[in-house]
Amino acid sequence: MARRYDSRTTTFSPEGRLFQVEYAMEAIGNAGAAVGVLSTEGVVLAAEKKTASKLLDTMKRSEKMYKIDSHIMCAVAGITADANILINQARLAAQRYAFSYQEPIPVEHLLQQICDTKQTYTQFGGLRPFGVSFLFAGWDVHYGFQLYQSDPSGNYGGWKATSIGANSNAASSILKSDYKDDMKLTDALSLAIKVLTKTMDSATLSPEKLEISTVCLKDGSVVHHQLTDKELESLLNKAGVLASDKSDS
Amino acid sequence: MARRYDSRTTTFSPEGRLFQVEYAMEAIGNAGAAVGVLSTEGVVLAAEKKTASKLLDTMKRSEKMYKIDSHIMCAVAGITADANILINQARLAAQRYAFSYQEPIPVEHLLQQICDTKQTYTQFGGLRPFGVSFLFAGWDVHYGFQLYQSDPSGNYGGWKATSIGANSNAASSILKSDYKDDMKLTDALSLAIKVLTKTMDSATLSPEKLEISTVCLKDGSVVHHQLTDKELESLLNKAGVLASDKSDS
Amino acid sequence: MARRYDSRTTTFSPEGRLFQVEYAMEAIGNAGAAVGVLSTEGVVLAAEKKTASKLLDTMKRSEKMYKIDSHIMCAVAGITADANILINQARLAAQRYAFSYQEPIPVEHLLQQICDTKQTYTQFGGLRPFGVSFLFAGWDVHYGFQLYQSDPSGNYGGWKATSIGANSNAASSILKSDYKDDMKLTDALSLAIKVLTKTMDSATLSPEKLEISTVCLKDGSVVHHQLTDKELESLLNKAGVLASDKSDS
Amino acid sequence: MARRYDSRTTTFSPEGRLFQVEYAMEAIGNAGAAVGVLSTEGVVLAAEKKTASKLLDTMKRSEKMYKIDSHIMCAVAGITADANILINQARLAAQRYAFSYQEPIPVEHLLQQICDTKQTYTQFGGLRPFGVSFLFAGWDVHYGFQLYQSDPSGNYGGWKATSIGANSNAASSILKSDYKDDMKLTDALSLAIKVLTKTMDSATLSPEKLEISTVCLKDGSVVHHQLTDKELESLLNKAGVLASDKSDS
Amino acid sequence: MARRYDSRTTTFSPEGRLFQVEYAMEAIGNAGAAVGVLSTEGVVLAAEKKTASKLLDTMKRSEKMYKIDSHIMCAVAGITADANILINQARLAAQRYAFSYQEPIPVEHLLQQICDTKQTYTQFGGLRPFGVSFLFAGWDVHYGFQLYQSDPSGNYGGWKATSIGANSNAASSILKSDYKDDMKLTDALSLAIKVLTKTMDSATLSPEKLEISTVCLKDGSVVHHQLTDKELESLLNKAGVLASDKSDS
Amino acid sequence: MARRYDSRTTTFSPEGRLFQVEYAMEAIGNAGAAVGVLSTEGVVLAAEKKTASKLLDTMKRSEKMYKIDSHIMCAVAGITADANILINQARLAAQRYAFSYQEPIPVEHLLQQICDTKQTYTQFGGLRPFGVSFLFAGWDVHYGFQLYQSDPSGNYGGWKATSIGANSNAASSILKSDYKDDMKLTDALSLAIKVLTKTMDSATLSPEKLEISTVCLKDGSVVHHQLTDKELESLLNKAGVLASDKSDS
Amino acid sequence: MARRYDSRTTTFSPEGRLFQVEYAMEAIGNAGAAVGVLSTEGVVLAAEKKTASKLLDTMKRSEKMYKIDSHIMCAVAGITADANILINQARLAAQRYAFSYQEPIPVEHLLQQICDTKQTYTQFGGLRPFGVSFLFAGWDVHYGFQLYQSDPSGNYGGWKATSIGANSNAASSILKSDYKDDMKLTDALSLAIKVLTKTMDSATLSPEKLEISTVCLKDGSVVHHQLTDKELESLLNKAGVLASDKSDS
Repeated sequence: MARRYDSRTTTFSPEGRLFQVEYAMEAIGNAGAAVGVLSTEGVVLAAEKKTASKLLDTMKRSEKMYKIDSHIMCAVAGITADANILINQARLAAQRYAFSYQEPIPVEHLLQQICDTKQTYTQFGGLRPFGVSFLFAGWDVHYGFQLYQSDPSGNYGGWKATSIGANSNAASSILKSDYKDDMKLTDALSLAIKVLTKTMDSATLSPEKLEISTVCLKDGSVVHHQLTDKELESLLNKAGVLASDKSDS
Repeated sequence: MARRYDSRTTTFSPEGRLFQVEYAMEAIGNAGAAVGVLSTEGVVLAAEKKTASKLLDTMKRSEKMYKIDSHIMCAVAGITADANILINQARLAAQRYAFSYQEPIPVEHLLQQICDTKQTYTQFGGLRPFGVSFLFAGWDVHYGFQLYQSDPSGNYGGWKATSIGANSNAASSILKSDYKDDMKLTDALSLAIKVLTKTMDSATLSPEKLEISTVCLKDGSVVHHQLTDKELESLLNKAGVLASDKSDS
Repeated sequence: MARRYDSRTTTFSPEGRLFQVEYAMEAIGNAGAAVGVLSTEGVVLAAEKKTASKLLDTMKRSEKMYKIDSHIMCAVAGITADANILINQARLAAQRYAFSYQEPIPVEHLLQQICDTKQTYTQFGGLRPFGVSFLFAGWDVHYGFQLYQSDPSGNYGGWKATSIGANSNAASSILKSDYKDDMKLTDALSLAIKVLTKTMDSATLSPEKLEISTVCLKDGSVVHHQLTDKELESLLNKAGVLASDKSDS
Repeated sequence: MARRYDSRTTTFSPEGRLFQVEYAMEAIGNAGAAVGVLSTEGVVLAAEKKTASKLLDTMKRSEKMYKIDSHIMCAVAGITADANILINQARLAAQRYAFSYQEPIPVEHLLQQICDTKQTYTQFGGLRPFGVSFLFAGWDVHYGFQLYQSDPSGNYGGWKATSIGANSNAASSILKSDYKDDMKLTDALSLAIKVLTKTMDSATLSPEKLEISTVCLKDGSVVHHQLTDKELESLLNKAGVLASDKSDS
Repeated sequence: MARRYDSRTTTFSPEGRLFQVEYAMEAIGNAGAAVGVLSTEGVVLAAEKKTASKLLDTMKRSEKMYKIDSHIMCAVAGITADANILINQARLAAQRYAFSYQEPIPVEHLLQQICDTKQTYTQFGGLRPFGVSFLFAGWDVHYGFQLYQSDPSGNYGGWKATSIGANSNAASSILKSDYKDDMKLTDALSLAIKVLTKTMDSATLSPEKLEISTVCLKDGSVVHHQLTDKELESLLNKAGVLASDKSDS
Repeated sequence: MARRYDSRTTTFSPEGRLFQVEYAMEAIGNAGAAVGVLSTEGVVLAAEKKTASKLLDTMKRSEKMYKIDSHIMCAVAGITADANILINQARLAAQRYAFSYQEPIPVEHLLQQICDTKQTYTQFGGLRPFGVSFLFAGWDVHYGFQLYQSDPSGNYGGWKATSIGANSNAASSILKSDYKDDMKLTDALSLAIKVLTKTMDSATLSPEKLEISTVCLKDGSVVHHQLTDKELESLLNKAGVLASDKSDS
Repeated sequence: MARRYDSRTTTFSPEGRLFQVEYAMEAIGNAGAAVGVLSTEGVVLAAEKKTASKLLDTMKRSEKMYKIDSHIMCAVAGITADANILINQARLAAQRYAFSYQEPIPVEHLLQQICDTKQTYTQFGGLRPFGVSFLFAGWDVHYGFQLYQSDPSGNYGGWKATSIGANSNAASSILKSDYKDDMKLTDALSLAIKVLTKTMDSATLSPEKLEISTVCLKDGSVVHHQLTDKELESLLNKAGVLASDKSDS
């Protein structure tokens, strides 16, 4: 019976549900997982690369992590083409803000703009919702380090640790049991890797299946850093989940 | 048979009903409840936080209460992404009014604008109604302290005490039997907590499941105050409904 | 069979009917009644308040009566949110006319504008008719005291006495039998109360279930007056239909 | 089978018919009749008032006759709200023409503009045809006295005598048998009353069920005159169809 | 099966047909016939008036023939209201051309513009084709006397003799057998009357059922002439098909 | 099953086909054939006139061949009204190019513009594809003599010899077997006539059923020439396919 | 059941899939294959020409390869008319960038713009996705030689070796097993030909069924070169897959 109400964003079901928005969330449930963890020293974003292939030219672009401005990073799960549109918009909004006010855009301010756009696509006919969820990690003078999650409905929330994409339920319960408020950056990295290991299908991880970024403060200015293959390898080694070199996608 | 008329805002049913608007109200019936009580000393807004989780970064943003201008607060029930759009519009309208006339926007004047927007989304094709109800609490020189409630149809009314969201019928009857016209602020606070306790599923309340704000006058100017966890705790203690610390969501 | 033609305002049925307009009128049949009576000394508008509750903050706004300009009042029956849109438009039109021509807008001139807007919503796709009927009471130099009724189709007519909303048929026959051309204002008030008493479900009336306004001439200028609770009480007393204080909604 | 093609103005049926236009004409077949007769001394328009009620405030506005400009009158049958839109447009067009060229708009020129608007509403999607027919009576220097009839399709024609609304077929045959080319104004008035008497349901007529207007020349300028109740009464007396005073609607 | 593809101008059937255009042509098959014949001395247009009635005020306007410019006439078959729109457009285009280039618009140039408009209404959604065919008769310095026919699809062609409207097949075969390249104007007139006589239902013709126009050259300038009732009578007499005066419609 | 996907240009079938475009091509399969042959001395376009009738006024306009600019000709197959729109656009584009750059528009450059327009009509809702195919013949300094074919999808290609319209498959195989790269213009003319003879239904051809044009170079400038009836007759004679004079359409 | 959700780009299926985008990809699966291989000395693009015919005038335009700017080439698979629109847009974007910044557009920057356009056509109603995939080969100062693949969804990725069009799965596995990171240009050419040979239906290749282009650096500037028939022949000879001359399409 749900079917009578599920083909348009302009139709509520008799129970007050928007099925097209719920279906868009399904698109994300199949995407590679991404995890975010807030520590006292910075924010960690970690993501699984689902389409990893040795023929991919990985040097040139990241698949799951995008730099929005010098103080904001994001990780995506869902339809990449949809994400590109919103990431472009986010970068533009950040530059415009910096140009107008001569200071970096506050993290939540930026997120709100992106989420308002997402909401629009759930209320007007002739559109479909954006099939993408985001983790935004950043730092500003108002709230320090921050981690936000947004979904296709345009809802968003501030989190200490959260995940999007495949197996996010399993990831949530690990985060809930293991997260501690006074974690250091290295603890956060370990937790992120633990979550990905547990929620990905294979028991072992290799650097090419993984992207990890951090947003920290160094000498008073924000730095974000995408971990190199070497750094990833040493982290995985430490976690005891490094796959042997032979594995291939 | 209702089904033939329930998929568009541009279609009346033969009985003159607008089903899409009624369905949007269903979306609100499932949302966390919010209660408003008018006292002689100010207005109280209290709301239940449904998505409370210890991983939520509550420091950074409120989930159910929004400051519109220095003299107006609102509480929401329904689709948060929809609420954000209207709250932005309300803030802008308040600033524009203040800029044009050099005085704060009258509370009902602001509400009317928001409700006209809501009405628009119930009369034109290619749109769906906003799935959100509001409680607006404020003070102005014309009518003093005021409390309004608006629903997805764009209807609104001035109330002495009212509630929106889950179990609002039960809340109404408690309010009707317990409300008195000469209540002080502390009485209003107690009444609000009593209502939430009775309508929420769990028998006990903890500060992290609750948001309470007040709009009062102090030295001739309007102040609004969001109660801290400590203040909440002492209130709940007094009401005898404070949950033991062990409970976790 | 009617169903094939009843979902759009852009479709005539084979008999030349517009079902969506007729359905919009159904929405009004369920609304609280409003009665208008023309007397030699002024116009009386009286209306039943359906949502009366002791928690409603009645001081701040009327529910059924609206002042359009200093010489025009209106009473509404139907969807209040729809009415608000049209009342705003009417107020603006009246101000614009006064500004342009330095004299009050003629009553029918104003009504025609509102009704043209209503008509538009019955002829174009992607819209629904306004679900609201109006009684307009006013005075101008051209025709003196006037009473008009308009419905969702955009039709309107000038009346000596008429009613809209629930039980309007019953009201009509009382008006037809009791109305006299040389009525004074007090006679008109009595007639209006008689009609409401007969058409409302309860046998007794109390001031909080009632709104009554008059448009009169005093010292050459138009005054309109919304009756206070005290005035209502004395009127009801005189009519012998005052409810005892105990009744509550 | 007709049903597959009858819900939109943008769809021809396989036989090349436009059903929505035909359905709009049905709306007119139920409306009060209007008759027009051309005489050597002027044009007569006569119409039946269907909604006659003693509570109607007839002093203030005519229901079936409208003055377009000082030399043009029209009578309507159909949806009054639709007629209002077109009459407004006609008045504006007449004023604009007079302003631009400093002479009265030729009658057919005006009619053509109204009919072009009507045609538009039969060819574009998202619209419905205007549910109204007109009789236009006027005088200009090009063709002298003229009588035109237009229907919802936008077709129009010049006539010596014609009728629109209920029972127009019966009216046509009376006109065809009784009309003479050299009729005086009084003959035309008698013929118009004869036609209305025969086509209305009741055997007798009273002034309040009737509107009659004439467009004549007096001292070289066009005058139109709406007959008063007294004039109507004397006409009906002469015709022997005056209803006794007791009848009431 | 055709039915799946026949309700919109934007849908080809699997055989590549546009049914809505074909249905529009059906509307023309029921309209009064019009015939055009090219002679060495000018062009003849003749048409049957279907709605002839003695109450029609024929003096004031022709029903089937329209003057576009001083050198171009047209005859129409189909929906008159549709024709009016296109004739207005044609007159405007002719005036604009004359204004810009100080010479009369070439006949085919004008026709092409009208046909492009017609084509537009067969390719875009939310429109229906114009239900009207035209015969254009004219003279210009490029090609001398010309006769064109256009149909609802926007197709057109130059003809020596052709017909549109009811019984156009029968008309075509008479034209094919009787047309000669060196016809004089009187021969063309006789041929046109012969065709109309054969294709109309009644065996006899009367002037009021007929309109005939000619476009000729006189003293180097183009003249077009609509035949008077007297001229028509003498022509019909000559052809032996004049109806006796008693017949009436 | 195809039917679910075949009514809109905005819908791919599950196999990735656009049925509306394929149906538009059907419209061309029923149209008169057109053949193009490239020779070393110029390009030949030849086409069958399907609606040939002795009443057609052939002197005034060609039915299948259009001059776009002094160096480009085209032949069409399909819906003539659609072709007119695109030919107008092509002529305008050619003039604009010449005006801007003071040199003739390159042939492919022009074709690309027309094809982009065609493509647009296959990708947007509320439109249907153009039901017409073109052969473009031209000469420019970049590529010398050129022959292009375009279809309703907006695809096009450069050809040495090709055909569009009825029986184009049969035409293709004759062209494939008989075409030689070093053909002279007379050889190309013979080949074109051979193809038309074989693919048309009647065994013999007459000049009035045929249009042939050539684009050649003469004294360094491009000339195109539409063959006269006499030239056609002599060509057909030579080919032995001239129909006897008695045949008539 | 998929069918309920597969006719519009604005509808997610309950599993979060966009069927219209998937169907557009089907259109590409039937198109001629294209292969791209990155070498240390440059990028190789090779494609199969499906519509090869000896009557095609191949001299004038390539069918599968397009030069975007002096440093970027692309190969297409899918609907050519769709590809033309995007290639035009790409060329314009490249010129605009060069004009604004006085340096060549970075390869990924250009690709992103094209892919954003593609994405738009998957999210808005009244459109269909572009039915075309691209391989972009280029060089810029930021990343040196690059090879990208984009599909109808607007997704894209950087690859070392990849293929689009028919049999792309088979092609992928050959590429995966044979590709080496330190390939020279000649190795890349051999690999491309090997892949095409294996995935095309016929066992042998001839130059006219093939297009191969390279993007290399020479004396510091980028050169791209489309291989001549002679070069193709010698390559095919070397690979031992040259078809004998007799074969014909």
